[in-house]
Amino acid sequence: MCDFQKILESIKEKAEKTSEKGKVPTYIPELAKVDKNHFGIYLNMLEGNDYCVGDWDIKFSIQSISKVLSLAMAFNCLGANKILKRMDVEPSGNPFNYLSLLELEEGIPRNPFINSGAIVIADILISELKNPKEEFLQFVRDLANDQTIDFNYEVAASEAKTGYTNFAAANLLKSFNNLENDVDEVLDFYFHQCSIEMNCKQLSNAFYLFANKGKCLNNKTYLTSSQVKRINAIMLTCGFYDEAGEFAFEVGLPGKSGVGGGIVALLPGTFIITCWSPGLNPKGNSKLGMLALESFTTQSNLSIF
Amino acid sequence: MCDFQKILESIKEKAEKTSEKGKVPTYIPELAKVDKNHFGIYLNMLEGNDYCVGDWDIKFSIQSISKVLSLAMAFNCLGANKILKRMDVEPSGNPFNYLSLLELEEGIPRNPFINSGAIVIADILISELKNPKEEFLQFVRDLANDQTIDFNYEVAASEAKTGYTNFAAANLLKSFNNLENDVDEVLDFYFHQCSIEMNCKQLSNAFYLFANKGKCLNNKTYLTSSQVKRINAIMLTCGFYDEAGEFAFEVGLPGKSGVGGGIVALLPGTFIITCWSPGLNPKGNSKLGMLALESFTTQSNLSIF
Amino acid sequence: MCDFQKILESIKEKAEKTSEKGKVPTYIPELAKVDKNHFGIYLNMLEGNDYCVGDWDIKFSIQSISKVLSLAMAFNCLGANKILKRMDVEPSGNPFNYLSLLELEEGIPRNPFINSGAIVIADILISELKNPKEEFLQFVRDLANDQTIDFNYEVAASEAKTGYTNFAAANLLKSFNNLENDVDEVLDFYFHQCSIEMNCKQLSNAFYLFANKGKCLNNKTYLTSSQVKRINAIMLTCGFYDEAGEFAFEVGLPGKSGVGGGIVALLPGTFIITCWSPGLNPKGNSKLGMLALESFTTQSNLSIF
Amino acid sequence: MCDFQKILESIKEKAEKTSEKGKVPTYIPELAKVDKNHFGIYLNMLEGNDYCVGDWDIKFSIQSISKVLSLAMAFNCLGANKILKRMDVEPSGNPFNYLSLLELEEGIPRNPFINSGAIVIADILISELKNPKEEFLQFVRDLANDQTIDFNYEVAASEAKTGYTNFAAANLLKSFNNLENDVDEVLDFYFHQCSIEMNCKQLSNAFYLFANKGKCLNNKTYLTSSQVKRINAIMLTCGFYDEAGEFAFEVGLPGKSGVGGGIVALLPGTFIITCWSPGLNPKGNSKLGMLALESFTTQSNLSIF
Repeated sequence: MCDFQKILESIKEKAEKTSEKGKVPTYIPELAKVDKNHFGIYLNMLEGNDYCVGDWDIKFSIQSISKVLSLAMAFNCLGANKILKRMDVEPSGNPFNYLSLLELEEGIPRNPFINSGAIVIADILISELKNPKEEFLQFVRDLANDQTIDFNYEVAASEAKTGYTNFAAANLLKSFNNLENDVDEVLDFYFHQCSIEMNCKQLSNAFYLFANKGKCLNNKTYLTSSQVKRINAIMLTCGFYDEAGEFAFEVGLPGKSGVGGGIVALLPGTFIITCWSPGLNPKGNSKLGMLALESFTTQSNLSIF
Repeated sequence: MCDFQKILESIKEKAEKTSEKGKVPTYIPELAKVDKNHFGIYLNMLEGNDYCVGDWDIKFSIQSISKVLSLAMAFNCLGANKILKRMDVEPSGNPFNYLSLLELEEGIPRNPFINSGAIVIADILISELKNPKEEFLQFVRDLANDQTIDFNYEVAASEAKTGYTNFAAANLLKSFNNLENDVDEVLDFYFHQCSIEMNCKQLSNAFYLFANKGKCLNNKTYLTSSQVKRINAIMLTCGFYDEAGEFAFEVGLPGKSGVGGGIVALLPGTFIITCWSPGLNPKGNSKLGMLALESFTTQSNLSIF
Repeated sequence: MCDFQKILESIKEKAEKTSEKGKVPTYIPELAKVDKNHFGIYLNMLEGNDYCVGDWDIKFSIQSISKVLSLAMAFNCLGANKILKRMDVEPSGNPFNYLSLLELEEGIPRNPFINSGAIVIADILISELKNPKEEFLQFVRDLANDQTIDFNYEVAASEAKTGYTNFAAANLLKSFNNLENDVDEVLDFYFHQCSIEMNCKQLSNAFYLFANKGKCLNNKTYLTSSQVKRINAIMLTCGFYDEAGEFAFEVGLPGKSGVGGGIVALLPGTFIITCWSPGLNPKGNSKLGMLALESFTTQSNLSIF
Repeated sequence: MCDFQKILESIKEKAEKTSEKGKVPTYIPELAKVDKNHFGIYLNMLEGNDYCVGDWDIKFSIQSISKVLSLAMAFNCLGANKILKRMDVEPSGNPFNYLSLLELEEGIPRNPFINSGAIVIADILISELKNPKEEFLQFVRDLANDQTIDFNYEVAASEAKTGYTNFAAANLLKSFNNLENDVDEVLDFYFHQCSIEMNCKQLSNAFYLFANKGKCLNNKTYLTSSQVKRINAIMLTCGFYDEAGEFAFEVGLPGKSGVGGGIVALLPGTFIITCWSPGLNPKGNSKLGMLALESFTTQSNLSIF
């Protein structure tokens, strides 16, 4: 049996010594202000023990990690079939904001984890829910078993002002009749969803059900085991933009990253791990977070492969 | 010397007998209502005589033909150099609404006659002019020497409601910092510009300067002969979306088409010809208009080549 | 515990009743002759028991499945680092013969399982080995612990005559200086590698090491457990052309298909399964084979996720 | 009336003073040896006078300029219709060696002046002619009215050895059934065609028919005036790779360039001009040649627009 605490400590130590910590994204002004020296990890073992190091208890913007949670809510509401009529589940092989592929494939996003796919999921939820923002937030709070989780309204407003690429994507989707609701309404929901803030512990808890066959920390079941298998598969093949293959190759776990510097990954039946380090590599994933998870799976010898 | 009237009559007769008249565009609701049996030609010889057949005096939506006039106004205001910093003058080889190329080339439109290029020209004019819509309309009226020319406000409003692809393009330009003004403001100007209505005679007159070294019907000079040469070159290489090569090959004249079914073409020093037939071919150009101009240059043996 | 034999029988029964069995590929004349009513499965449990149904003992052309074995041999000879200088490990998101991406990415194949990537692996092995064809065949025989496995020389010759797309890819690689040896020599090796024939049992045995941390049926270790993890990751993300995401989503196992109609997949530590049915779906993967594996993982509830 | 000799002298003087003369291509080893200080112009007026400066009488490799001559021979043999079944006449908007577009458009080259299009023309001529190389050379000699013109066999052999991109293109065409003859045979013809050497005077003479409605220097008619119009149109829209729009915009003449540093251009009914300067700009066209022709049309005020 590994000494997980020791592994986490050694990863943190190495991270602190690294001078090249990546770059915080400047295209979302609110995120550009974050200090890139933050570093935290929270490890949640299903057998009961938890381990943590560094800034595991400081909240950050979960950004694209929210796409997994909105997909889970859409699966929960509608099942997979209706969703798959409006998007594919193939890796895109391209950076997260490429519109070219969306145009070439006539408005059918490659998967729910590129921006255009997540915008369609947002559209689906708006059509299904009475109070989309409130209900989605409640869903996330329930998954994480923590009623303090909230949107960051400044971040949401900041993205609404400068998120031109997302407006381009949403309008392109609309031109292909793959958006039922108004562009502004859908993006308002989408920007709020992305603005949710959590710390490493809350995120690990929120992802508990993906390692536990659909059953949450609070023992409630939100997804069938077949749905969980499918969401995990999409995380593995599409969770890291055009670095998904690299992550599968080096880390070997389903996971999801966000431009807020968070990465969450999991081994079904065994653990959920969340790492936060705000500096990004050129592909838009947390630079130290990627290295931390690679180091964790190598040292612990735990992966799906 | 040709009997031009006889040539025009024979073209009209043949067009009326054609059962396959193409399709009116449905994506702009106001244009979908036009009767596709309309057919008119107006030929303006620089030596003085004019010839016309059919519905040459019925107004139609000039749509993309307005891109030549806005480019002319931008050349007139700013000269070519400042404009060429924000776009290229190469044929796109792609349909008129492709965003892929714009994304691949980082927000630099291929040329001023694809939508994204014309949107940048609109942005340039807004930055230059105090009352962009009024001043542009006046410019067009002066070129055509006809103060009755006007916008069609319903058509402009119709495009503002459903022009999602243009909203996508403008937002993408904005994301690449190639749009100075607000997306909504730029597109409002752009949609008005496209909504201008003219008949075949008015359009031929408005294009008089391109066949006459920059000097208008009313004898005023708006462009240098070098500017005219350049605008004519762009019309030849980029005037017909991804059918530009075909038009150069079959017709051999600089020209420009619009989804309202109009086509205007010209032989420098000799003539301007405008044809209107609302049904479009699959590439978005007037089906009978293309055939009419091919027939005209073949019968008259007049082309630039 | 599942009754695996019963599951396999039920899958076979259903497959036999299916009228739509896909299409055998016509672009390799020798493969076009195969009867598409063949259907066989061989399941190899690591704890010791084997299960099989139908035509599990008839040999077929393994084609692209050989790419996993040549990659394993290259890892074994050279380690991962040298290989990764000449190719990437990202899913391509495109059909298996697309040259566009290779050109766009300047001769660096997306991964070792698209044709261009496998051609680079072939080039690497030629540079490393004295008698490449003989040594590779021996490597495969040793992995499968079966010295009767052989090339099909007619199939290799058939591909050499008509494999224009592969000649195009190899020449393109050469133009980007990503091929050390002669195009003809590399493709001769590649076509022989693809022509190897095995039955379902032999294939399952040859893939034993990928489920067993690098150790073969005959107890010899060819790969480190880290190398095995990486090859399994590439199988999961890139093993099924542009249907890789779909396979991960529906089946949830690392695997590899070939146009000969074979599919092999595995659950590390638990089993290897090979299915053969010659008719292909439009993406080039065995139509009934995909359904069979989906059915197997659903019924057995065994997947990596 | 211009003093053409004076204009040419001034252009030569300016060219000689330019320190940035571009780069000779290194991918064809024989061409890499040429001294980039050569500079020559030959101007052929249809009314009778000729003008020349510099190295107008030194032979150089015409390379892609030969594509116009092979297209002319194909038009002469077969007419336009059969040719247009196997290729398009649209600008490619891409560099001259892009295979992506060819693959996307399923083996139909964009136009006869990109490599893949010229390879199809070579294939057409091989199918039509008994002794393709001899007959093509004779055709070129007759056009130029000069029986001393010849292939450079070293250059042809040099390209056959290293022309991997052309082998890739030809094999891709073959895979799409758009090549009737063997890849090696077609490329052997193609490489010889490109290796023809002429000086500026010979090239201007060979292009005489394109300015003279299809009638040669020696008074023989090889093309109809409609065929000439069409070939001139393709030169204007496609003659300069992805700089065709720029050339039309700045120069305003149909023309064709080659990587040997030659450019020939013409004004129908008026003149043919050939410039040679071996250094290329980043787009693969003669750097000083482009500037020379721009300067010539600006000073002489002669263009098609």
